[in-house]
Amino acid sequence: MNTVGLIAFALVGATKAIREEFDMFGVTVVGLATAFAGGMTRDLLVNRIPLALMAPIEISLGLLGVGLAIGISIALESADDHPLTQISDAIGLAAFTTTGAIVATQAGIPAFGVVAIATINAVGGGAVADILLDRSPFILLDDFYASCTVLGGSTYWVVVTTGGSNGTAAAICAVMVVGTRTAALIYGWSLPTAQVLGTTRE
Amino acid sequence: MNTVGLIAFALVGATKAIREEFDMFGVTVVGLATAFAGGMTRDLLVNRIPLALMAPIEISLGLLGVGLAIGISIALESADDHPLTQISDAIGLAAFTTTGAIVATQAGIPAFGVVAIATINAVGGGAVADILLDRSPFILLDDFYASCTVLGGSTYWVVVTTGGSNGTAAAICAVMVVGTRTAALIYGWSLPTAQVLGTTRE
Amino acid sequence: MNTVGLIAFALVGATKAIREEFDMFGVTVVGLATAFAGGMTRDLLVNRIPLALMAPIEISLGLLGVGLAIGISIALESADDHPLTQISDAIGLAAFTTTGAIVATQAGIPAFGVVAIATINAVGGGAVADILLDRSPFILLDDFYASCTVLGGSTYWVVVTTGGSNGTAAAICAVMVVGTRTAALIYGWSLPTAQVLGTTRE
Repeated sequence: MNTVGLIAFALVGATKAIREEFDMFGVTVVGLATAFAGGMTRDLLVNRIPLALMAPIEISLGLLGVGLAIGISIALESADDHPLTQISDAIGLAAFTTTGAIVATQAGIPAFGVVAIATINAVGGGAVADILLDRSPFILLDDFYASCTVLGGSTYWVVVTTGGSNGTAAAICAVMVVGTRTAALIYGWSLPTAQVLGTTRE
Repeated sequence: MNTVGLIAFALVGATKAIREEFDMFGVTVVGLATAFAGGMTRDLLVNRIPLALMAPIEISLGLLGVGLAIGISIALESADDHPLTQISDAIGLAAFTTTGAIVATQAGIPAFGVVAIATINAVGGGAVADILLDRSPFILLDDFYASCTVLGGSTYWVVVTTGGSNGTAAAICAVMVVGTRTAALIYGWSLPTAQVLGTTRE
Repeated sequence: MNTVGLIAFALVGATKAIREEFDMFGVTVVGLATAFAGGMTRDLLVNRIPLALMAPIEISLGLLGVGLAIGISIALESADDHPLTQISDAIGLAAFTTTGAIVATQAGIPAFGVVAIATINAVGGGAVADILLDRSPFILLDDFYASCTVLGGSTYWVVVTTGGSNGTAAAICAVMVVGTRTAALIYGWSLPTAQVLGTTRE
């Protein structure tokens, strides 16, 4: 699952950079940032040297995603809106949320921190990529994307706290993320803005 | 004081995100980032796990600020320009500057580092929030805001170096920040740009 | 070399901020960020307290660069496009790449990590400065700039791996960066975008 996630995230990030006409170095950096910036931030927060810098295999998977993006972009418009990419992305989101929750729990961080680190691990890369592309991170604006990781991270914490094993918690967390994200894609879920909340109260 | 600061900073950040029509997740993230990103950066720089992730009470205060912002935004225009918000913000600025200076001093960091970490602790959150909102950090552009924290941090270091206790230094630092910030608000202080400097020399 | 780099980087960053009419605090922050953000990120990644916060001499050099930028901007247009600035910048790029590679190697980080940290050390400051100026980092968009550091970092790693001493590796790495960067400036090298790659294949 983590493998699928790394490739999918790098592909999505690189495709966005290609659309903005970044050069090859820029496309590679944005692709790798999307795949690794969340995990590197997680490792910084729990005070260890980022795994991504120590594991050549992970980087190769990221580069594969970037290569795929370049290859596909020549053959195909909008590779990042393709259903296959979106499903891979949902699987990646689930894998990254789960990994984040596990690392945070092992570092002895309490409830809110676990959810925060799971979320940063899963969506931090995409947010960094958007900042590099000079936009507001899309996760803050609309769509029901980061909310899936918040739900997943909370579920993980609830299961572990109520006596479930790490394995059970991880499985339920992953199902929760893939499930809510798929539902959000199919039914077009989104969170309201304060403006909408204000209007409905009038 | 720190309590007032966390609530005020989260309120100011969330209000800016509401104005940009971010969704509820985005408003929460920008509010929490304004309240906590400075302190988290400080903790990363002195190499420890961010306190914010370990302390549920602090997060609750941040969420209270976000909730206030959402509630107030429905009742009121421009909650972040309200005098009460500006005074709370000045108190928060003082509290965060002082905390930053204390943490840096305890970590054995010399003069410039103390001022730098005090400043990052106090204004880093607002800078991150502005980057998430896709603007240049307002602290770099005009106003006499970050300058108050530089003055406060320098004062702290001078007092400690000349033999004052940490408590004395903290008190003088806090008074310095609140004082200069209030004066800046009342008299409309701002720093010159290089263009202005160039013109006045001609 | 590191001295030249710190002054040149601070000068280039501060000049960009002056052109955007940032106030004196903003100009100073952007200048210092250009000079130090790469090295601070490097230190965070290898899990130590940033050297810049511990070394007053380095900061003084950064402030000297900022002061030069302010002085020159009043006398001269486009200080950052001046040949002398560009040569200083190339020397700085080489110094920072080499320092990054040495620190990463000492921290026991493998091949890709060494190149990544050398690159972040050399171009991270400029990227942070561009984000503060609300643009996409210029290194991602065009020019043959970050590529020089990737080549330099890779060279360093190859020399060390094939049995060369750290000193030899550092010297060859520095020559490689200055050489490729100078050639890129003279001959106007740049990397292709995916669009260009797509076109040439048709």
